[in-house]
Amino acid sequence: MGYRILETHDIPAYLGERGHWDDLTDIRVREVSDGNMNRVFLASCADGTRSLAVKQALPWVRVAGPSWPMSPDRADAEARAYRQVARVAPDKIPVVHGYDPENHALVMEDMSDLRVLRTLLDAGGAYGPHTSARIGEFVAQFSFATSDFGMPSAERKALVAESVSPELCKITEDVVLSEPYVEHEHNHWHPGLDDLAAALRADARLRTEVADLRHTFMTAAQALLHGDLHTGSVMVGTREGAPVVRVFDPEFSFVGPIGYDLGLYWANALVSEERARALGALSDHAEQLRLSWEAFEGGFRRLWPSRVDTFFDDAYLDRFLRRVWTDAVGYAGTEIVRRVIGFAHLTDLTTLPDPVPASRRALLLGRELIVRRGELTDVTAVRALVASLG
Amino acid sequence: MGYRILETHDIPAYLGERGHWDDLTDIRVREVSDGNMNRVFLASCADGTRSLAVKQALPWVRVAGPSWPMSPDRADAEARAYRQVARVAPDKIPVVHGYDPENHALVMEDMSDLRVLRTLLDAGGAYGPHTSARIGEFVAQFSFATSDFGMPSAERKALVAESVSPELCKITEDVVLSEPYVEHEHNHWHPGLDDLAAALRADARLRTEVADLRHTFMTAAQALLHGDLHTGSVMVGTREGAPVVRVFDPEFSFVGPIGYDLGLYWANALVSEERARALGALSDHAEQLRLSWEAFEGGFRRLWPSRVDTFFDDAYLDRFLRRVWTDAVGYAGTEIVRRVIGFAHLTDLTTLPDPVPASRRALLLGRELIVRRGELTDVTAVRALVASLG
Ligand SMILES: Nc1ncnc2c1ncn2[C@@H]1O[C@H](COP(=O)(O)OP(=O)(O)O)[C@@H](O)[C@H]1O
Ligand SMILES: Nc1ncnc2c1ncn2[C@@H]1O[C@H](COP(=O)(O)OP(=O)(O)O)[C@@H](O)[C@H]1O
Ligand SMILES: [Mg+2]
Ligand SMILES: [Mg+2]
Repeated sequence: MGYRILETHDIPAYLGERGHWDDLTDIRVREVSDGNMNRVFLASCADGTRSLAVKQALPWVRVAGPSWPMSPDRADAEARAYRQVARVAPDKIPVVHGYDPENHALVMEDMSDLRVLRTLLDAGGAYGPHTSARIGEFVAQFSFATSDFGMPSAERKALVAESVSPELCKITEDVVLSEPYVEHEHNHWHPGLDDLAAALRADARLRTEVADLRHTFMTAAQALLHGDLHTGSVMVGTREGAPVVRVFDPEFSFVGPIGYDLGLYWANALVSEERARALGALSDHAEQLRLSWEAFEGGFRRLWPSRVDTFFDDAYLDRFLRRVWTDAVGYAGTEIVRRVIGFAHLTDLTTLPDPVPASRRALLLGRELIVRRGELTDVTAVRALVASLG
Repeated sequence: MGYRILETHDIPAYLGERGHWDDLTDIRVREVSDGNMNRVFLASCADGTRSLAVKQALPWVRVAGPSWPMSPDRADAEARAYRQVARVAPDKIPVVHGYDPENHALVMEDMSDLRVLRTLLDAGGAYGPHTSARIGEFVAQFSFATSDFGMPSAERKALVAESVSPELCKITEDVVLSEPYVEHEHNHWHPGLDDLAAALRADARLRTEVADLRHTFMTAAQALLHGDLHTGSVMVGTREGAPVVRVFDPEFSFVGPIGYDLGLYWANALVSEERARALGALSDHAEQLRLSWEAFEGGFRRLWPSRVDTFFDDAYLDRFLRRVWTDAVGYAGTEIVRRVIGFAHLTDLTTLPDPVPASRRALLLGRELIVRRGELTDVTAVRALVASLG
């Protein structure tokens, strides 16, 4: 832990030392940390022509303080993920100007002209026509490049070894993939969900399916993932008239099942559709799934002819993509359930005038996505499932 | 590579230096290397009351010489595997007296009173009543202990990271799990198999199934494996009237699908039964599968209540074991095929007066085990398959 914890007033000197900023008389810094884990500072010059973001991992969870220690090595995972994405999809992440492993600090593009997708959706905004497709492409490009299709076998083994992330994976294994299905002090929910929360805990079939998804999360070393791809890890906006989509905050990155990244995005899309529906907006829940899946599948198939290992044939690609789909449906279910009765809830639901009806629908949907993922073989089937919730 | 390559005459001084041997006037050494990869020396005193084995990895493949370089780090993998097994099944491996990572040399129990199982079988010997059961137990104990059932999540991640074995896994990925199904200079076979070898290369369905097993081998980080568990990696015999079974040579160890270890053993059992049958002995091919599977399954189920992660429920155990079974059937098939038309063949078949009929049966059996592994749900089904070969 012997490293410099940066405060707002340290940032100018830090950026100067690291060669990121010349004129230290013309720099203003503000802290914008709003995530749970880390600190983020924005530095800019007076006329706004130049700006940078600095993200630093503390040796604890930011919102909890030193009473909840956590290794700042998570910043290494974030830097590693950005490095891999930069090779194949540099247009979908912030430009990284430098990573300082000693101080667990990343200097990157200031994206404050963009908006966090969740904030936008919560405020009643729309996804926009490109967002979900870009996310699907992002998952295709990143996962293909770091799979045994995109990377030579020996290089992949090195990536697997250097990318293990015991502390952050354990958080997911616990908070997402087990606690909501057992009695646990982390769990909490609206009293209007008491009966459903109890029913889910008593549901033996559900438990077995979650155990399966959990073991897959722990053992299926398919590709380097983002690991936390919810709508709060996506920024959207317009630059010079063109739509811009940026994925950020990949500190939960590890080598795991590709369906986990898609599933997280889908869960957050489905929940935000429940919010829209509760507020009286017409909503086609499955549309963002369709857009992101088609972009993912199309992207993966476009990359396939460039695979480094041609022993894998086209029929195997079909089979593999079907498995990714099925996993993604299941992980979407686990993400929905944990966001309603687990540790960390979603503002999409909690800020509704009456969160209960939408939360009940979300829980029922989550359960079916998990248990029936093998039968929900396409977007139409998911659409029918949502419709059957009444 | 700057390490000491030990010759027979270096062994006494070496054992003295490392504190394994006191009276260097009373020591005789002979080299017994008969594997492809490494050197093995046996040291004993004149009256035979004390003896040791020394195994050293060279910076190349022993039988090929310096023209085929290979990292001696494979000895680290061997030492690591022995260390893990020693915690849970010390009675099924040689006693390891020390590992010298600088010189990639392992000092262990002399087992020259035992016989290599393959040699015994080739000479017409029987498995004996305990051998396959011990092997099944070995796989259960070793794999459970190094799975997410037997080891806490964070410790497991460290094991996965330290156990990657790019060079040796690549050998398996190539030699076992792809070359036999394509044109490759490594492949060779008896002219009497020309038609079948060509048919296997043209078999699209087979190719896809092997691609699937290959990708599982590359990505399913279930447990630390032996990685080369054929009948040449097993010694058997009797000590003080009791049967003794020892697994050795785990240098191909890595974290992979548990079914791979069982499948390799099964393939070698099935091929040795083909040998017996060709020589006119009555043979129940599936008996060794039954004995090893029942011991594996029983062993795993006995350990289950001690799992470190009780989120995994009994119904998930059933599902997981079914998957291990199915993988094992498939890997048995790939091991049989590669041993008949791939790089390295089995003496079980090559030393037959006429190797062709048994080799043809083996190839057909291998193909069906791979392609129909999903339907071959128990030992009876495998027995019926063997019978259907005529
Ligand atoms: N490069 C950036 N440019 C502008 N704002 C950023 C940038 N990175 C992060 N932020 C802001 O900081 C917040 C927290 O960042 P995030 O990476 O999500 O941290 P955490 O790991 O704590 O979740 C984001 O929600 C966003 O508002
Ligand atoms: N501990 C031992 N005691 C006696 N003989 C051994 C021992 N270890 C290996 N051997 C002999 O040496 C041979 C080669 O050992 P092995 O570990 O299989 O080497 P390789 O890695 O080259 O295949 C074995 O087949 C066996 O005959
Ligand atoms: Mg965040
Ligand atoms: Mg050997």
